[in-house]
Amino acid sequence: MRVMRVLLVGAGGVGTAITRIAARRPFFDRMVVADYDPSRAEAAVSALGAEAGRFQAERVDAGDEAQVAALLAKHECDVLLNATDPRFVMPLFRAALGAKATYVDMAMSLSKPHPERPYEECGVKLGDEQFERAAEWEKAGALALVGMGVEPGLSDVFARYAADELFDEIEEIGVRDGANLTVEGYDFAPSFSIWTTIEECLNPPVVYEAGRGWFTTEPFSEPEVFDFPEGIGPVECVNVEHEEVLLVPRWVNARRVTFKYGLGQEFIDTLKTLHLLGLDRTEPVTVPSARGPVQVSPRDVVAACLPDPATLGERMHGKTCAGTWVRGTKDGAPREVYLYHVVDNQWSMAEYGCQAVVWQTAINPVVALELLATGEWSGTGVLGPEAFPARPFLDLLNAYGSPWGMREQ
Amino acid sequence: MRVMRVLLVGAGGVGTAITRIAARRPFFDRMVVADYDPSRAEAAVSALGAEAGRFQAERVDAGDEAQVAALLAKHECDVLLNATDPRFVMPLFRAALGAKATYVDMAMSLSKPHPERPYEECGVKLGDEQFERAAEWEKAGALALVGMGVEPGLSDVFARYAADELFDEIEEIGVRDGANLTVEGYDFAPSFSIWTTIEECLNPPVVYEAGRGWFTTEPFSEPEVFDFPEGIGPVECVNVEHEEVLLVPRWVNARRVTFKYGLGQEFIDTLKTLHLLGLDRTEPVTVPSARGPVQVSPRDVVAACLPDPATLGERMHGKTCAGTWVRGTKDGAPREVYLYHVVDNQWSMAEYGCQAVVWQTAINPVVALELLATGEWSGTGVLGPEAFPARPFLDLLNAYGSPWGMREQ
Repeated sequence: MRVMRVLLVGAGGVGTAITRIAARRPFFDRMVVADYDPSRAEAAVSALGAEAGRFQAERVDAGDEAQVAALLAKHECDVLLNATDPRFVMPLFRAALGAKATYVDMAMSLSKPHPERPYEECGVKLGDEQFERAAEWEKAGALALVGMGVEPGLSDVFARYAADELFDEIEEIGVRDGANLTVEGYDFAPSFSIWTTIEECLNPPVVYEAGRGWFTTEPFSEPEVFDFPEGIGPVECVNVEHEEVLLVPRWVNARRVTFKYGLGQEFIDTLKTLHLLGLDRTEPVTVPSARGPVQVSPRDVVAACLPDPATLGERMHGKTCAGTWVRGTKDGAPREVYLYHVVDNQWSMAEYGCQAVVWQTAINPVVALELLATGEWSGTGVLGPEAFPARPFLDLLNAYGSPWGMREQ
Repeated sequence: MRVMRVLLVGAGGVGTAITRIAARRPFFDRMVVADYDPSRAEAAVSALGAEAGRFQAERVDAGDEAQVAALLAKHECDVLLNATDPRFVMPLFRAALGAKATYVDMAMSLSKPHPERPYEECGVKLGDEQFERAAEWEKAGALALVGMGVEPGLSDVFARYAADELFDEIEEIGVRDGANLTVEGYDFAPSFSIWTTIEECLNPPVVYEAGRGWFTTEPFSEPEVFDFPEGIGPVECVNVEHEEVLLVPRWVNARRVTFKYGLGQEFIDTLKTLHLLGLDRTEPVTVPSARGPVQVSPRDVVAACLPDPATLGERMHGKTCAGTWVRGTKDGAPREVYLYHVVDNQWSMAEYGCQAVVWQTAINPVVALELLATGEWSGTGVLGPEAFPARPFLDLLNAYGSPWGMREQ
């Protein structure tokens, strides 16, 4: 058993949920909770009450590699767990490599659309910047476990499990995400970071096909109605850019890999309007303020106008489902399964005081850290969740009290 | 003939067009063009070339009453023409009263929705703050001519003309505004200030009915398709809050007064989405910037993301129509007419280098100033355009080379 000291960067919804899940597990020695806003880090730690002993709040600018490196050194942390938004992936990834610390994130380095044919060809793909440095990680004997949330993350573990235990040949692996969550008192209140949602949904969706490789389509392409389990029911899903499509084909054989998100028509229309008006942009525009003209990112303003999804748990009702649908053959016969994980908001609020979507994201990196601590998972280089054996992860998820399910289609 | 010295505040699209229209008319002695951004004022003046002699650029903060008063005094101006957005109506109106200068604007002081029943009853109405001070203007022997653009403005003149010369009794006066303008290279590019458009369209629309007085409805109520003249054709129009509904009944007898704007379905949906997301708000939100957290108004950010409508003239095609539809009786027989003014963007660009919508707004206060200079229009207090004889205005509009029209329905 390795003695683990974790630097958790980001004390937003997901970071806070991570502290609450981890506090119940003995596998680590210390968790330093660092945020740009020190009051958020302090709030996360103090909310742990009697369980706060192994936790400590710090302030950090996740974009400042030197500051992050200094914090890793100060607290002798051997793991950096990144719970910030994807803009900070690269500085945190580099800081961890410099310190030879294990790095874990839940979203990968950002893509850039193809300059001429954005809706046909990939430009810079999600994670490209990270995979380019894989040799350096191997040389350092260190591990970057990338995309280790729920989606990507658990969805990738499901893909590996299907390939290892359920199928001989796989025709298609399609991650499918849907929910029936509503928020009382709000006409429009996304249940996950709007910054990330805009990034995912308005970038050209990426699809993988054996022989053809990765390619892109128009946003919101290939709509399909997917029937989600445990009472959620049918939801309209569309192609969205997501890490699984880039990760799964590197370790799992499948003729086609897709990711479809159950956005619903109203949400799709809203995102289209934001794009039409240029309000999805991250490049700053100049606007008046009481202090004179200032430069702000329109997407940050959109986020500031909406309620913080992490604070909506009390008003939220319903369930969220993440899962991987797999179609192929086993013992010569066609087979089709949906491997899934459902969280009921009422349960996650009662058990952890966290809303379902951020809680579901947060549990998976904690499970992964525990497997790394016990040595059941190990490796060097830049690896996705499907690079590791799936069964220990799925068993430990059940042991955490949040079981996964499988439906034969 | 009065010797007129004008302080024009605001050198945006409408202000710039005012300088170009006025430059061709001899009725005034001097026009000082003042803007918060002195480069805009200088650009407006220098664009006049050989005709720039009577014009002079200045810097002014329209929200700073003392600064405006000092500028009026410095240049001995007897007229303040307000071409800013409606937030600056009150400071400019007060500065003019203090100086006993004639005040002219094209939009009136802002409304506030009824706190409990916003979509049934009026709260503070458009212009209320200005009309409350009417006695002070009368006492000072000074004139505030309010709502003297195209709509309100020419539309009110049409109402007065209909009452004086075309009808014995009027059942309904309905201002109807529509266009077939398109902007090359932009999927979404409003042809008028988005700040003002949001204000007009998302506030509860106001309707007047004799006996009942003013009341409000839900936004976008009473949709109707109105057939606009000169090749524009049918456009979907909806109720919108507008000054005419507040002005016309004060001087003209009519059983019902409405304003409907030909927004089209796509534009209505876009405005609804902005409202749903809270992006129409003017109260500041806190967002990150390179200089640390700053406070900005979401509506200012929406405006900053869109192209400046005043700069779109070269890429714009089509015509815009402003007009007043009147239904009633004459000599015992039912009658229905549409009095209108159409501007073709190609014509206004070629003649004045101004796009059609801002040019059409700008010509009317210039005509009104000329009537005040010649004495054909005169008065004291706070008066709308329909308080003055309509015929001299309509004749002078024709003399400016931009004729109005009438269609018997």
